[in-house]
Amino acid sequence: MGLYQRCRRLRFPGLHACGLHTAAVPTPPHWLVERLGYFEELWTAQVKRLASMTQEEQRTIKISLPGGQKVDAVAWKTTPYQLAQQISSNLADTAVAAQVNGEPYDLERPLETDSDLRFLTFDSAQGKKVFWHSSTHVLGAAAEQLLGAVLCQGPSTECGFYHDFFLGKERCGMLVDLCRGPHLRHTGQIGGLKLLSNSSSVWKFPDAPETLQRVSGISFPTAEELRAWEEWREEAELRDHRRIGKEQELFFFHELSPGSCFFLPRGTRVYNALVAFIKAEYTRRGFSEVKTPTLFSAKLWELSGHWEHYREDMFALQPPGLDRPSSSQSDHSASPHTDTLALKPMNCPAHCLMFAHRPRSWRELPLRLADFGALHRAEASGSLGGLTRLRCFQQDDAHIFCAPDQLEAEIRGCLDFLHSVYTILGFSFHMALSTRPSGFLGEPCLWDQAEQVLQQALEEFGAPWDISPGDGAFYGPKIDVHVRDALGRPHQCGTIQLDFQLPLRFDLQYKGQLGALERPVLIHRAVLGSVERMLGVLAESCGGKWPLWLSPFQVVVIPVGTEQEEYAREAQQSLRAAGLVGDLDADSGLTLSRRIRRAQLAHYNFQFVVGQREQSKRTVNIRTRDNRRLGERDLAEAVQRLLELQDTRVPNAEEIF
Amino acid sequence: MGLYQRCRRLRFPGLHACGLHTAAVPTPPHWLVERLGYFEELWTAQVKRLASMTQEEQRTIKISLPGGQKVDAVAWKTTPYQLAQQISSNLADTAVAAQVNGEPYDLERPLETDSDLRFLTFDSAQGKKVFWHSSTHVLGAAAEQLLGAVLCQGPSTECGFYHDFFLGKERCGMLVDLCRGPHLRHTGQIGGLKLLSNSSSVWKFPDAPETLQRVSGISFPTAEELRAWEEWREEAELRDHRRIGKEQELFFFHELSPGSCFFLPRGTRVYNALVAFIKAEYTRRGFSEVKTPTLFSAKLWELSGHWEHYREDMFALQPPGLDRPSSSQSDHSASPHTDTLALKPMNCPAHCLMFAHRPRSWRELPLRLADFGALHRAEASGSLGGLTRLRCFQQDDAHIFCAPDQLEAEIRGCLDFLHSVYTILGFSFHMALSTRPSGFLGEPCLWDQAEQVLQQALEEFGAPWDISPGDGAFYGPKIDVHVRDALGRPHQCGTIQLDFQLPLRFDLQYKGQLGALERPVLIHRAVLGSVERMLGVLAESCGGKWPLWLSPFQVVVIPVGTEQEEYAREAQQSLRAAGLVGDLDADSGLTLSRRIRRAQLAHYNFQFVVGQREQSKRTVNIRTRDNRRLGERDLAEAVQRLLELQDTRVPNAEEIF
Repeated sequence: MGLYQRCRRLRFPGLHACGLHTAAVPTPPHWLVERLGYFEELWTAQVKRLASMTQEEQRTIKISLPGGQKVDAVAWKTTPYQLAQQISSNLADTAVAAQVNGEPYDLERPLETDSDLRFLTFDSAQGKKVFWHSSTHVLGAAAEQLLGAVLCQGPSTECGFYHDFFLGKERCGMLVDLCRGPHLRHTGQIGGLKLLSNSSSVWKFPDAPETLQRVSGISFPTAEELRAWEEWREEAELRDHRRIGKEQELFFFHELSPGSCFFLPRGTRVYNALVAFIKAEYTRRGFSEVKTPTLFSAKLWELSGHWEHYREDMFALQPPGLDRPSSSQSDHSASPHTDTLALKPMNCPAHCLMFAHRPRSWRELPLRLADFGALHRAEASGSLGGLTRLRCFQQDDAHIFCAPDQLEAEIRGCLDFLHSVYTILGFSFHMALSTRPSGFLGEPCLWDQAEQVLQQALEEFGAPWDISPGDGAFYGPKIDVHVRDALGRPHQCGTIQLDFQLPLRFDLQYKGQLGALERPVLIHRAVLGSVERMLGVLAESCGGKWPLWLSPFQVVVIPVGTEQEEYAREAQQSLRAAGLVGDLDADSGLTLSRRIRRAQLAHYNFQFVVGQREQSKRTVNIRTRDNRRLGERDLAEAVQRLLELQDTRVPNAEEIF
Repeated sequence: MGLYQRCRRLRFPGLHACGLHTAAVPTPPHWLVERLGYFEELWTAQVKRLASMTQEEQRTIKISLPGGQKVDAVAWKTTPYQLAQQISSNLADTAVAAQVNGEPYDLERPLETDSDLRFLTFDSAQGKKVFWHSSTHVLGAAAEQLLGAVLCQGPSTECGFYHDFFLGKERCGMLVDLCRGPHLRHTGQIGGLKLLSNSSSVWKFPDAPETLQRVSGISFPTAEELRAWEEWREEAELRDHRRIGKEQELFFFHELSPGSCFFLPRGTRVYNALVAFIKAEYTRRGFSEVKTPTLFSAKLWELSGHWEHYREDMFALQPPGLDRPSSSQSDHSASPHTDTLALKPMNCPAHCLMFAHRPRSWRELPLRLADFGALHRAEASGSLGGLTRLRCFQQDDAHIFCAPDQLEAEIRGCLDFLHSVYTILGFSFHMALSTRPSGFLGEPCLWDQAEQVLQQALEEFGAPWDISPGDGAFYGPKIDVHVRDALGRPHQCGTIQLDFQLPLRFDLQYKGQLGALERPVLIHRAVLGSVERMLGVLAESCGGKWPLWLSPFQVVVIPVGTEQEEYAREAQQSLRAAGLVGDLDADSGLTLSRRIRRAQLAHYNFQFVVGQREQSKRTVNIRTRDNRRLGERDLAEAVQRLLELQDTRVPNAEEIF
């Protein structure tokens, strides 16, 4: 079918929940009338052509259906929709498009040859794409007809769609007229549609940018699904880490250091607990923590290749001082001025210097260097958002230098490390093996071997994974790890990357068992990834109800009356001396039950209530943040139990206290 | 005595241990002959003038001697040396100069009026100054006469003296001819003199600098004292932290990041142990750790005053990106370009932003914010040296925001903090209260009050301290803390500084108890100071024999034979699982005793030797690094005991195990 489908073929039974006010439709402009004329002309020709093809050929074709069944159909006449009806009326109603020999197809586009037929529904990512693509046409048509907007691009996104409009007088080309599709059969399939936001965007053309209006929305097959999504979204907004960060006084941002986070005492506590967790794993797993500088000569970045490939994202500077040359000279040259310094965006080159600073022997391998150094990347200000993307952050970054025959064991070790940590953090995860891209560097046989090692390790490991062919870095294949948080949202956190290039660039060598110099393999790996971002993900995942070991609200001590205040302070001191968070709510202006309620709203894992009885027996009466009453316990024993629960990093300390 | 003393008055009985080879003296240049002529002329006139003054006046004057005794003397005739002889011949021999009414005096310069007389000996700092000043003249005379050098400056220093020479043809002014003194009576008082180094220096004059030769040396009243000093110096060199850092693989430096240190796994362990120590104290003392960014807008540094006063020492940069203005525009203007960023040289402004980011109440005070953030200062490359002065370092930095009436308690708390930490580190310390300088900012009454508070806290504290009048910062008075390490060498580490200015500049306020807004006082304080430098000081102080809790060489497990290797690995794992450093020396190529010796030379606090008996009983046979045999102990108990000794941070774990 040579003619592209057009949105006018979508029949509009009405705009559901669209939110557009029904202003009077202005008289259609002359070009709209003209455009419709062209379309009807072409459409009539197309319908005629199909009819004549069918009559001329009279050809029966074989169609393989999803279940494996094969049916006969008439070339240029039978449509996927008709076949869907034959299978079940439910499928015909819920299908949003077809796939014919792997190619996306409108449901009403006639089949042409023997084909393998699949149906797309809203449940799949591809189905959603079609559904939201059609939905953006609904939005476009409404904007064109009701507001006189000129339509620019209107793509589907990962969670809905948007459409850019020009509301001035300028024409925006032919974009609205030609669309590759496929589309829904009719807009009645869109049971619920909601517009979400209105912002400006920029249409880039050679001379100067033009400001457009961008309207975003989301749609679903049924109104119920839209309502369910709205509820989920409300919950997600409540859990937004920026909101939790502010409410719980974990961190804040300031315009005088854009893209960097200020961690307040409570946020620093969570941060340090995360880092301490990883450090404990390092001790167990034979990683050695090191500390490397922040500021390096640009010569290092030339050597590592960052100057060539990553320079735009680095903060570079000239050292101060009288003998400094004018910086304009070096600003746009390919090679940096010899004095230029840059803040490290990654730790790997520093670790290569560390490996190379003295001769190495095979006995020292695998050498696993871990570093929590601050990294700086010059992210565009528009891309910054909370803790998700920062200009300054720390990673649980480590580099493993190993002999080629140690690679497999090291990869297995890395996967086990990921598994341990994500299990404790309560994340499920999924892995993707990215193989060599076009233009990869190095020997193909080395790549073959490395990809095989990664694949084998993944298979043995047993967790779900798939292959992203060609998605590896040019310097080596990698495993990307996507975790799913408690709300089921995906986050890319951990990574395991092989690198054949840096050992070459830094001429890294070690004396092998037989005395000859050999080249180590380098593995870059991170489990949390950016500690800052992981803190944000965890805040949202737990909705601010932190597990005890991460919690900045472990215990609040509440004296029943002012007579118990001194004992309450003693209890608080016992907690603090043990390194636990022990706060005190001795506000005599509030009743006991109000103070308990306040502590529970603030998500204190435990409340230690102390009255006259507790004071005389040196006990505490314990409640959890879910208002379970654990009863009276000896103070010292309670502190000891909390320490145990903290050290074992259990997710449910309140239940198993 | 209007005529200045000259070095020719120092009679040269010979050059002791001078190290200069006795080359043939070249014919004296004409200006030297001329100069001697002038001197003899002036000297004869001076001697005559003194004789006539004595005869004319015939005046008896009263001289108070050091013990309080008063004696008669003849004006213009009696010399301090003569009076020293009357007191004791020992004093006359060891005195290097006199102080007359507080003014430095040559011993042979006649007294003029009623005077208070003191004698300076080599034991005092002032005496050393005179001694080394005279010694540098000896060096100068030798260089002039033997090498034909033109003499430039030749001062005494804190540990010896140096002299700059010009070895070209240019005259160097009259500097050698006029010297304020005082001097030794004769060079025979210099019993031992040693030249130490030869380097180049620069003589700055208006048009261009001229390269000079600098020869440094040291001298003592006796040859024995010189020998003792040489031994001490050898010990100090053995203990040089750069040497220890290299030998023990603690850290290294690299030209691609000048002025920054790369901490290797063992160095990072010591570093982290120091930081963990301070963090534990923070928990105990109610300090809250926070994390603040590294890179800030120059607007922050304008606000804090650093841009005006400290800009030359800061690393500033323009953010990358297309919309960045050419940096040359803003390079030399007083105010930074709005986009300019700078790496923080200090944490205080970030903590002020943190205090100010939301309204504060008196209930939150004192607010003690602690930060281990990386600081960058653009130190000149010439001033860099090991860990002593770096461009990138971290401090155990904290800022206390408190109400004026909390100041005294907070200062007492700071002093107690210093005392606790230095005691554990094995340092004695001495404090200096620096009071308002000329040009101080703020209300005099505020200063009065603050200086009084500091003085009172120091007095109550009871440790030795003195006053440095006028040495305070313009923004507030301070207490500087000088520690003495195990070799008795002084280091300036801790500081307690009051600041009345930053709270004004950042307009910091809190709601007082009566509801009105009040201004907090800010205390800057550090105990270790730079963690990096403290690590260097500690390395030298312990000579690489680290106390257990800081040690990167806690235990090495040594199997007697290969049959015990597996059990030795188990023992090593037990140590590591407990977070202790457990290494293994299973080198079967060396005898047991050689391996024990090797471990002791490497300063392993403990050696766990395991033979057949130990294996069967799951015990270890323990030796210390001083080769004391502690005998057989249960493995698990030994690990437990090590943890106890580590946690209590005892200096002598080997003795009290």
